[in-house]
Amino acid sequence: MTTREPGLFEIKDKDLAGRIGRLHTPHGLIETPALLPVIDPLRQELPVDRIRSIGFNAVITNAYLLLKRLGRNITKNVHEILGFDGVVMTDSGAYQILEYGRVDVSPDEIIEFEKRIGSDIAVILDIPTGNAKSYSQALYSVEETLRRANEAAAIIDADKRVWTLPIQGGQYIELLERSAKRSARLLNKYQLAALGSPTVLLERYRYSTLLDMVYTVRRIIPWSKPLHLFGAGHPMIIPYAVALGVDMFDSASYILYARDNRIMTRTRTYRLEDLEYMPCSTPVCVKYEPRELLEMPRSERVKLLAEHNLYVLREVLNEVKQAIREGKLWELLEERSRGHPSLAEAMKAVSERYTGYLIAHNPRVKASARGIFIHGPESCSHPRIVQHNIMLLARYQPQKRAGTLIPVHHEVKPLTHSKIYRWAKDRWRDRHVLGYAPCIGVIPEELAETYPLSQFEYNTLLHHDTVMKTIERIKQYLKRHQYDEVVLVYCDKHWSEKLADILAGENLERPRLALEKVSADLCS
Amino acid sequence: MTTREPGLFEIKDKDLAGRIGRLHTPHGLIETPALLPVIDPLRQELPVDRIRSIGFNAVITNAYLLLKRLGRNITKNVHEILGFDGVVMTDSGAYQILEYGRVDVSPDEIIEFEKRIGSDIAVILDIPTGNAKSYSQALYSVEETLRRANEAAAIIDADKRVWTLPIQGGQYIELLERSAKRSARLLNKYQLAALGSPTVLLERYRYSTLLDMVYTVRRIIPWSKPLHLFGAGHPMIIPYAVALGVDMFDSASYILYARDNRIMTRTRTYRLEDLEYMPCSTPVCVKYEPRELLEMPRSERVKLLAEHNLYVLREVLNEVKQAIREGKLWELLEERSRGHPSLAEAMKAVSERYTGYLIAHNPRVKASARGIFIHGPESCSHPRIVQHNIMLLARYQPQKRAGTLIPVHHEVKPLTHSKIYRWAKDRWRDRHVLGYAPCIGVIPEELAETYPLSQFEYNTLLHHDTVMKTIERIKQYLKRHQYDEVVLVYCDKHWSEKLADILAGENLERPRLALEKVSADLCS
Repeated sequence: MTTREPGLFEIKDKDLAGRIGRLHTPHGLIETPALLPVIDPLRQELPVDRIRSIGFNAVITNAYLLLKRLGRNITKNVHEILGFDGVVMTDSGAYQILEYGRVDVSPDEIIEFEKRIGSDIAVILDIPTGNAKSYSQALYSVEETLRRANEAAAIIDADKRVWTLPIQGGQYIELLERSAKRSARLLNKYQLAALGSPTVLLERYRYSTLLDMVYTVRRIIPWSKPLHLFGAGHPMIIPYAVALGVDMFDSASYILYARDNRIMTRTRTYRLEDLEYMPCSTPVCVKYEPRELLEMPRSERVKLLAEHNLYVLREVLNEVKQAIREGKLWELLEERSRGHPSLAEAMKAVSERYTGYLIAHNPRVKASARGIFIHGPESCSHPRIVQHNIMLLARYQPQKRAGTLIPVHHEVKPLTHSKIYRWAKDRWRDRHVLGYAPCIGVIPEELAETYPLSQFEYNTLLHHDTVMKTIERIKQYLKRHQYDEVVLVYCDKHWSEKLADILAGENLERPRLALEKVSADLCS
Repeated sequence: MTTREPGLFEIKDKDLAGRIGRLHTPHGLIETPALLPVIDPLRQELPVDRIRSIGFNAVITNAYLLLKRLGRNITKNVHEILGFDGVVMTDSGAYQILEYGRVDVSPDEIIEFEKRIGSDIAVILDIPTGNAKSYSQALYSVEETLRRANEAAAIIDADKRVWTLPIQGGQYIELLERSAKRSARLLNKYQLAALGSPTVLLERYRYSTLLDMVYTVRRIIPWSKPLHLFGAGHPMIIPYAVALGVDMFDSASYILYARDNRIMTRTRTYRLEDLEYMPCSTPVCVKYEPRELLEMPRSERVKLLAEHNLYVLREVLNEVKQAIREGKLWELLEERSRGHPSLAEAMKAVSERYTGYLIAHNPRVKASARGIFIHGPESCSHPRIVQHNIMLLARYQPQKRAGTLIPVHHEVKPLTHSKIYRWAKDRWRDRHVLGYAPCIGVIPEELAETYPLSQFEYNTLLHHDTVMKTIERIKQYLKRHQYDEVVLVYCDKHWSEKLADILAGENLERPRLALEKVSADLCS
């Protein structure tokens, strides 16, 4: 049990806009990013102590269903009811509103009930936008949720538990933005913001839209507040949502999938019937063959598949946290982007639309930071690469008036240790030598050893888009720093030749750029 | 125990040039692709029964070390010595030649010893090329290995065990090719071919070079023979090597890494000291925190890390086999290609250099085949997409003289169900309607429902290279099938607009191609 005030949120580490944090609650702290498995208060198939032993110390259940089942005068608290002494979040019945159009309790009654049962993280009774088909329907959900949040602010007991403010608007981005702005003003009363997410986006793999929603809200609500994303519990989306600033998830997918004989892996979902081999290593995967699972009684199988799915969710959260520690969250997103075309699309959107936002939040210096991986054009938006280029344009001043650009060797770093560098120094003694590398752009020789300019790995078979982005950066550098003359050296049958070919067709005003081809040997 | 003749190799399933097979040996069969963990006959830290229980029924050990330690007159067989009744492969001391320059037994003596100890899969004493620095050194290893293989052919007992023919030449591709050609003629005497792989390639992440070696050898040796790849036991390279036709691996990496406090995951290696969270779900990862592992006695930790690494290797093999079953091996390669820039480079090489080879081996029809994922330009080389285009050019004949090209909706398939299709049919009643889609190229309406023309998912934010490859396919189709006139319809603010913009600048001889922009709504 923590003695800190409930709702206190401490940020321990960050990378991109993702954070490792600690949210304090009456029943202990949650380390974020966290996922809260949904516990069915009426018929929980996988015992909650199994869930805890897999590594989840916080769960979410439904206060409305508890109220309906046990009556409003219940004297037990929710921890006793569930047999769980970890952190319990209670949802308010909003899901039932979505499903059945209404619930037969008032917003005040739900709040009183959540207090009574001792919820650690409580949610007011909002009106979810869900997959609202019309603007007016969406508008109603936003306005009514805000009205209720305003009213509830007077009766919630934020000193005793964490109170959650749901933000509605769904796919209506402009509405969502307005809603987030008005919610932000209420967040001195509430300690947790929560974004309602239309399930249809996840079912149809519309990850980019979901990420746009996260981006819209996260830019507006205070950075010091944790953000929960309702109902998004698939391994595929978690790294992206965290990278944009989501701290908490809840999901029933582990059990819904299990009931449907589906198993999650980090990158996709398999139907058990389609599996001949278990493509995973969880304790369930290493103990059973697909056939054995299919042949066992259903209730036993559902439990095992649910356990498996939770292990996978735990693994993904651990991977994300480890990546934040190492400053490798961008690399993790790129890695996952080839799991499904929707993720490739999400990655492209991240690299094109959110760069400014990610740079603003990305820590500038990170002691534990590892090398940067450059795979393709998306890699050019890696915040640390963009930061380097901003610095070169804004705060850097070369000391010489003549320059030589040489391609950076993909294995020999810093560039000052390469054969071509020694050759260039020897040939033009008084010139400023500048390396150029895919995505990175220009690396002035005197900066060659600073991070990350000798800590990157690149793929030498460049895509056209990567070449173009690299050229763009070289041109920006040359435009900003007016050298009198510059020679760009490139090697025969080398990626630098492709780059030089395109540069040769471009018109640079100043400096005059001379191109010089040298033998492949110098680049090897 | 199997009663089939040793060395019999049955191919059960295939995808790309990868196969699921069964190699029969005196101690049972190996399902391939398989990895044989290296067992140290002198000091095996992880008990061999643990290795078996993790799921490895075949191991490899070193006959030369056994001979040195136990003498040539030993009467025990290798299964008794190791305490393992699964399949035992024995290497011949070639590794010791690499390390120490020579061994003090003759090729004949090793062969006799391997027979005496009852090896299931035996290797003749070859001269590994290893990382040979000079051509003449590499040439010697090739010539001497072939000479020995020829001599040994007279004394090996291929009716009693599987005999392995090592193929040398290493990175000297031309030498390797020659060596493979001469080896191929000997493969009526030997039942398993084995490619010697320079460890430096793996250490330096030079995966493309290693894959070039595999490609060179696999094209030449008979398809019916299994191919072993010596010493390549890292999860990162396994899917690529299998896709090009490697059936078996051996590796000590599970234990070497463990001794060095390194743990494998499917996509990378972590140093235990750098881990704050276990980014995995093996029974070891779910039981211990990194700190707990670091604090336990070394011998205990090494065992656990070795177990973990073996679980991960098992998982990767299962993933690869499952992908072969589903016809998703190409997708697996693309997914893994973002794990490290060397893999992105390997993927680009695979997509540019090996397509013809992969198509030749890729099964044309696969009952279990799943949809195709199109992420970026590499996806355009997906064998099933290339096959479709070959068919369109070689065996297809349109029935009409006027055509309308419409962009295929990324969610609505077959294309005949889309809004724009109905619109086009309505507008030009007698024309041939053809869909066009990223990478896929042209889809004639009457083929819209055939596999895979309505079973693909694509990323709508196209790279320039993807657009260019798509245009290339459209142009090839139009050039081959001489329509009198064709209209290409594209939507405002849509990927098809980018494509039309580029096409507008191109000169098509015939047919005259008209471009028509329609509202974005028709494409949505």
